[in-house]
Amino acid sequence: MIRRLLSVVRPSGTDGPGDDAAIVDTDGKLAICSDGLTFERHKTPTMTYEQFGWMAAAVNFSDLASMGARPTGILVSLMLPPDTEEEDICDIMCGVDRCAEYCDTYVIGGDTKEGSGSVVGTAIGNMEDRKPMTRYGANPGDLIAVTGNLGTAAAGWHSMTNGLELDDSEYTLNVPLPRVDEGIAMAYSGAVTSCIDLSDGLAEAAWSVCNASRVGMEFRREFLPPGTGVEEVHELLGIPMDDMLLYWGGEYELMFTFKKDMIKQLYDNEVPFTIVGMVNNEDRPVISDMDKTEVLRHGIH
Amino acid sequence: MIRRLLSVVRPSGTDGPGDDAAIVDTDGKLAICSDGLTFERHKTPTMTYEQFGWMAAAVNFSDLASMGARPTGILVSLMLPPDTEEEDICDIMCGVDRCAEYCDTYVIGGDTKEGSGSVVGTAIGNMEDRKPMTRYGANPGDLIAVTGNLGTAAAGWHSMTNGLELDDSEYTLNVPLPRVDEGIAMAYSGAVTSCIDLSDGLAEAAWSVCNASRVGMEFRREFLPPGTGVEEVHELLGIPMDDMLLYWGGEYELMFTFKKDMIKQLYDNEVPFTIVGMVNNEDRPVISDMDKTEVLRHGIH
Repeated sequence: MIRRLLSVVRPSGTDGPGDDAAIVDTDGKLAICSDGLTFERHKTPTMTYEQFGWMAAAVNFSDLASMGARPTGILVSLMLPPDTEEEDICDIMCGVDRCAEYCDTYVIGGDTKEGSGSVVGTAIGNMEDRKPMTRYGANPGDLIAVTGNLGTAAAGWHSMTNGLELDDSEYTLNVPLPRVDEGIAMAYSGAVTSCIDLSDGLAEAAWSVCNASRVGMEFRREFLPPGTGVEEVHELLGIPMDDMLLYWGGEYELMFTFKKDMIKQLYDNEVPFTIVGMVNNEDRPVISDMDKTEVLRHGIH
Repeated sequence: MIRRLLSVVRPSGTDGPGDDAAIVDTDGKLAICSDGLTFERHKTPTMTYEQFGWMAAAVNFSDLASMGARPTGILVSLMLPPDTEEEDICDIMCGVDRCAEYCDTYVIGGDTKEGSGSVVGTAIGNMEDRKPMTRYGANPGDLIAVTGNLGTAAAGWHSMTNGLELDDSEYTLNVPLPRVDEGIAMAYSGAVTSCIDLSDGLAEAAWSVCNASRVGMEFRREFLPPGTGVEEVHELLGIPMDDMLLYWGGEYELMFTFKKDMIKQLYDNEVPFTIVGMVNNEDRPVISDMDKTEVLRHGIH
């Protein structure tokens, strides 16, 4: 079956398609990650099977992006109900393949068997001569930044469930773009001290970096860049802005910290970013505005 | 959660534990495979969570073994029902870790989220200076051999479901040993032309190699080495020998073909094997005995 599935994706040029394992040429540091999605929890009502496949690939390429790795392949393990239509399975694989193409790489292998509806991707990437970015290196005084805007996926969800027809937001929800080029540029810059993707929301990401790096963080509420549809959803439905900007998963921007005297290196490497706060000597993330300072909550919507 | 889980496994010495991706040093050809198990289909009634974790790792190390790769790490993606006990989750991870230890490697990362009960492993391995063994290289005139014996897992299953208490067979069913050292020795020998593991049974493995290599195979029934308990199960329960030797999955021996004039290289590399047949010019696998020749059926029990 997997061999038939591999026939719907672009040939990778690696050894061993349809074999027990794929063989890839490597040199130096390899980044590898494995993350899965289930129909039940991750397939939104408006998501096609192709988009589900895209997302299963995107979550993994996003993990590579947060380390600064250049993707070199993805494997897919499908566990699908026995009554799944073959066309739907091919659509999933096409989605994985299209996301791999977007990230300039290939499907290099996989496996399929009966299960309750899940797709686990495993992506590998090459660090070339870049140092991996981790969650461990943030230092007091570093600035905190994010790529892109925040809350678009959340706005897409509210639009979808309430019939607002904010098409751009809904598309971002269903077809997130992993920030691969941005991650590579950040790692090249040498300025970045920690990096993480926002798949669990900004608040959880901040807690992860604070715990791993043993630092605190102060975010400025007025600096947070709202994404497409966020303000409309707030105005039309009364959803608090914080819910969408801080506490919503399914976001695939990167949050990173950097040495503030090396900001020029970020510009030189054409990293697009918005500064949202600063690392401090405390042990937890807070958000401030003109009125008050509050500790970020754990948990995502 | 995965960070807590990683605390129950042996430290790997790689970068990035608990990070989005693991970083491993590599050089040359890397083998990578990804394969998953579900509680529903793969957890036998007598299997502990630790044994389930072992098996989830073993199926992947077996795939590496069939290529001749030396394992260098495994990632685990757990998708578990929300009511799973934390102790059970730790037992699964301990099982993965113990199998990794048996294969002289480490758990290097993973991910956990809600799902219906599945564990997907992704194993990576190094080919060093060996050529990967595939399913594609069998040639007419090559001999066919298997490592170890056949049917032990099948005998274990029948013993378990009928209360025969054939403990050794049942243990092999629940704790299969991936043939990593054997695979490496085979690849080193230079004599092997194709290799595959028997996770889908001998008949399916033979069909895969026949199709991939565009050859036929003739197995000799009297050459097939019955494993522990197979004859007892046949005598006590009347289960046909062929069912256990040919058409049963969950077997983790390797089947391989080799150039018959290079058999000395196999002995020199201390590859343990039993010759079971020969590759021919036909296009399908058959089995012969003194009375008749029949085509192997597709499908596994």
